[in-house]
Amino acid sequence: MRYSRFFTRTKRSAPHQESANAYLLDKAGYTSQVAAGVYALLPLAVRSLQKIEQIVREQMNELGGSEVIFSALQPKATGEQSGRWQDPNFRSITYFDQDADMTFGATHEEPMTQVVKETVQSYRDLPVVLYQFQTKFRKELRAKSGLLRGREFRMKDLYSFHPDLETHNAFYEQAAAAYLKTFQRLGLETYRVKASGGVFSHEYSDEFQVICPTGEDEILVNHAKKTGYNQEVEKTIPAGEKKQLERVRSIEVGNIFHLGSKYTEAFGVQYLDNNGQRQPITMGSYGIGITRVLGTLAELYHDEDGLKLPAQVAPFAVYLIDLTESGEGEKIEQELEAAGIEVLYDDRAIGTGQKLVDADLIGLPVRLIYSPKTAPHHQVELKNRATGEVDLINRQDLLKTVKQIIS
Amino acid sequence: MRYSRFFTRTKRSAPHQESANAYLLDKAGYTSQVAAGVYALLPLAVRSLQKIEQIVREQMNELGGSEVIFSALQPKATGEQSGRWQDPNFRSITYFDQDADMTFGATHEEPMTQVVKETVQSYRDLPVVLYQFQTKFRKELRAKSGLLRGREFRMKDLYSFHPDLETHNAFYEQAAAAYLKTFQRLGLETYRVKASGGVFSHEYSDEFQVICPTGEDEILVNHAKKTGYNQEVEKTIPAGEKKQLERVRSIEVGNIFHLGSKYTEAFGVQYLDNNGQRQPITMGSYGIGITRVLGTLAELYHDEDGLKLPAQVAPFAVYLIDLTESGEGEKIEQELEAAGIEVLYDDRAIGTGQKLVDADLIGLPVRLIYSPKTAPHHQVELKNRATGEVDLINRQDLLKTVKQIIS
Repeated sequence: MRYSRFFTRTKRSAPHQESANAYLLDKAGYTSQVAAGVYALLPLAVRSLQKIEQIVREQMNELGGSEVIFSALQPKATGEQSGRWQDPNFRSITYFDQDADMTFGATHEEPMTQVVKETVQSYRDLPVVLYQFQTKFRKELRAKSGLLRGREFRMKDLYSFHPDLETHNAFYEQAAAAYLKTFQRLGLETYRVKASGGVFSHEYSDEFQVICPTGEDEILVNHAKKTGYNQEVEKTIPAGEKKQLERVRSIEVGNIFHLGSKYTEAFGVQYLDNNGQRQPITMGSYGIGITRVLGTLAELYHDEDGLKLPAQVAPFAVYLIDLTESGEGEKIEQELEAAGIEVLYDDRAIGTGQKLVDADLIGLPVRLIYSPKTAPHHQVELKNRATGEVDLINRQDLLKTVKQIIS
Repeated sequence: MRYSRFFTRTKRSAPHQESANAYLLDKAGYTSQVAAGVYALLPLAVRSLQKIEQIVREQMNELGGSEVIFSALQPKATGEQSGRWQDPNFRSITYFDQDADMTFGATHEEPMTQVVKETVQSYRDLPVVLYQFQTKFRKELRAKSGLLRGREFRMKDLYSFHPDLETHNAFYEQAAAAYLKTFQRLGLETYRVKASGGVFSHEYSDEFQVICPTGEDEILVNHAKKTGYNQEVEKTIPAGEKKQLERVRSIEVGNIFHLGSKYTEAFGVQYLDNNGQRQPITMGSYGIGITRVLGTLAELYHDEDGLKLPAQVAPFAVYLIDLTESGEGEKIEQELEAAGIEVLYDDRAIGTGQKLVDADLIGLPVRLIYSPKTAPHHQVELKNRATGEVDLINRQDLLKTVKQIIS
């Protein structure tokens, strides 16, 4: 991709922000703030988010999920039926239509249950596992940490419906394992953290937390087991176990809930078992904050010069600068792209200094410079953004070397 | 994909609906109505929409666009600056936050202009061409035609910013050509129809209309030229030309607007030309109704048994039924999928009659039946859903034959 055809504008200076992700994503041209907690996602961010979503999609498909897109608008009637329309905890975070017959749903338990009601008759129709990538809207008073806590954000939410508690619990554990794998693929080491069910459930839930000094959560973690407890459940920890735990700051990137039959009962959803008896349906919900994942990656993967996102979620793999007039830059671009390696080729008519600054700021995994100094030796300068290492690579070894770094 | 792992539930009977797309998409399990003009998009619809969006994305990239995702939430301040906050035409279709400091933007001229203001200084920074796929919200009193007119819908909107009228006009014509090609790739023959600028512009605009007897528009078209006029501009047609026009009903699937400097002036956006002089920026906007495209395809491509979407936008290419217990169905599935052909393999433990009904209703381009009758002759029954033709195909010619039908 030519820089001149790709809308990206880094900033020489950006207003100070409380959190690194807000500051760097703005300065590097990934996002543009519209209002507190509301961001326009610019082309670099869209490319990263598409990669993040694709990794999550693959894992949710492997878990047996089918992808849907439910409406953000939800009618008053279903909210009243579940009781959330009247619930002050939900009302306080919900955008309503002026005429108050619709809400912009903060989550989607009600419409998912509604669809299960319309389509499930017998045990043969279960389980149902549906997920979506969706823009959610919440009135967020603490909107302040860039992409970490917004009034409008991308979320993956999955809902599962099972014939009994046993099959639900088995799926819940599969989902937990899928979450750990998903985050690991995204470049995030997560801890499975025990939590209360919050406003969603009376049972315990699990949070997936990333240790980060700038995170707004405070949790107790067991490093050996990669588990932990959030503050709501600290009282439940036996004294012996407590000794092995460390208190850390963290960011919650996902959570999973046992919902029991709260929603299915509210909507009168049952199925016929293999004896023809009506039985309740057990439900779970499973969220991942997609824009929050990008924000978390920015918090973890940066230095004073800019971002350095992991290769699998970086907008491109290679930042290419050609200081010669040989046309070799174009050849390198073509060779790498033919091998499926995404290149941002900086073809702007500007000084080299600014290109180097932008390369570090945008922070693609590999920076290549083809220059008059090294060209006669058939060499290309390669900088590994993650390690900072700079090497001269023989031209014929370039593809192989780039592949090694980004794989 | 195994039917048993893919959430799809067709209905034996569905409530009568005014429009074919609403009735069939509901009955075939593509959509589920949430409220008037509000639909949950189920897995079959999501797969079709992803294909529609990918075709549109490729054409917008070819046009030089960069993909963004702007926020649905837009602050009062920018709406006031452009004058749309006060405009009764916009207020009547807009969802507001209860506290009225934010709107759910019906379109995105203001935030796009705002980003251009922040990032464009000189003629070197132009043109800027940004597009997004986004869920739009509009208070739609006439929400009644399924996916054709909703309160919540997917839209592709593109905005272009040019240094002068000449480059704007040249791009506008490129965009018009890209639209014709995009719709043709989607299986829609569109007419370029002259229209007023409506609430967006005082200049003429162009609509892209598909002739359809159940459409809610009425236009005059020239079949030879594939052009036309909508009712707003009928008075401007010379009598001689009028004779060559036919009055037809149609569906508007896209539109493009000259916006001049209305928004860029409102936001004080200018650039420095190569003489260092401040100049105004000329803007255009270009929309495609993504969910409406799916609705239009359903209106055009169906018969009394169900849908028959074109292969490039159908959720899968092949509906596979194996009536034997030989395991051959699995082998056929693997062979086709290895060749990149998407198969929905109906592995449900239900009667063959229901499978045949569902195959026609969901309407994938090719239906294959491997049965005890034809298996001994090494043959597979193939039905071409578009033509209705049924043939026996030699097992070793199957892949080739399927490829021919869907290409």
